[in-house]
Amino acid sequence: MPTAVAGPEIERLIQLLARLPGLGPRSARRAALHLIKKREQLMAPLAAAIQTAFDRISICRVCGNIDSQNPCTVCTDPRRDPSVIVVVADVADLWALERASAINARYHVLGGTLSPLDGVGPQDLAIDALVSRAHEEAVKEVILALNATVDGQTTAHYITDLLHEAGVKVTRLAHGVPVGGELDYLDEGTLAAAIRQRTPF
Amino acid sequence: MPTAVAGPEIERLIQLLARLPGLGPRSARRAALHLIKKREQLMAPLAAAIQTAFDRISICRVCGNIDSQNPCTVCTDPRRDPSVIVVVADVADLWALERASAINARYHVLGGTLSPLDGVGPQDLAIDALVSRAHEEAVKEVILALNATVDGQTTAHYITDLLHEAGVKVTRLAHGVPVGGELDYLDEGTLAAAIRQRTPF
Repeated sequence: MPTAVAGPEIERLIQLLARLPGLGPRSARRAALHLIKKREQLMAPLAAAIQTAFDRISICRVCGNIDSQNPCTVCTDPRRDPSVIVVVADVADLWALERASAINARYHVLGGTLSPLDGVGPQDLAIDALVSRAHEEAVKEVILALNATVDGQTTAHYITDLLHEAGVKVTRLAHGVPVGGELDYLDEGTLAAAIRQRTPF
Repeated sequence: MPTAVAGPEIERLIQLLARLPGLGPRSARRAALHLIKKREQLMAPLAAAIQTAFDRISICRVCGNIDSQNPCTVCTDPRRDPSVIVVVADVADLWALERASAINARYHVLGGTLSPLDGVGPQDLAIDALVSRAHEEAVKEVILALNATVDGQTTAHYITDLLHEAGVKVTRLAHGVPVGGELDYLDEGTLAAAIRQRTPF
């Protein structure tokens, strides 16, 4: 969009919106127009919501979750099992597990996975913090809830080696047929894992 | 996402982001996380940019374009041909024509197209304003740059009837093969129009 037509304020708004994941230059333009059309209902509240989040949200110093309190709501919740730590790569994974109500435990957000090709080493992730948390007396089990990708599994092996010394049980997510999935469409690796890890019926 | 996990501020931010076109609940979550990760580089500037746009942008009282000055940059540009008005349904269409550097004229944004099914009648669009602009002495031609849809073409016919009395020339965009398009993939209507409106080579 030529600056001369819509003015620098809109130009700047579109540029920033286009940096959100899922929005390209074209959809950022559409989003900007939508905001301007919904001035009172959407534009003003959104500006305020982003500013409020900016002012209040921080990263939990215990687990790496994001929240308006620090330590976060999850870490300070007395009803959660303190003996289990679920290790995730990203806050989005933590949210996904919470949406599934998968487990009532605490979390540890690594902030990524080991990736030599991208130059991500152990010092770039919250691995040291995880090891010290795992050494606390209350912790009995660390569940590695990492992606089933090469980087995710490399990270899982690396952490397992470190934690074996701490004497805690290390487990990982089961591989198998997704609920609702059809065998015909599954890859061989998943099918083989599902057979290997079959459970009594 | 359960409110208990991430706090009401993030919940609210995600809800508002999800109302942008092109972002669903899932991508809004991803966008919110991205904002929180890029606090200084993206979150703070975006909040400021939306607020600035909110404070400064208004709808041009002449043509319906949006801009930080009123009348807008296009309407006040002395280098633009005052004898031609390009009628578009939406500001996005105006931007598209400007990106294409298609014409150096002024515009008139209708704010939509006639759509009996959706209850959009002539009084809901800036048609009266267009007719009075067309009666100004300087205006010699009105170009209807409306979508080639039923609603767009209905609107075009309606406006043409009104403007014939004003004695201005009314034209519309050419139909034909898109530049770079392959004949094999084009619909019959477009091909027939391209033959009908063939030009000397």
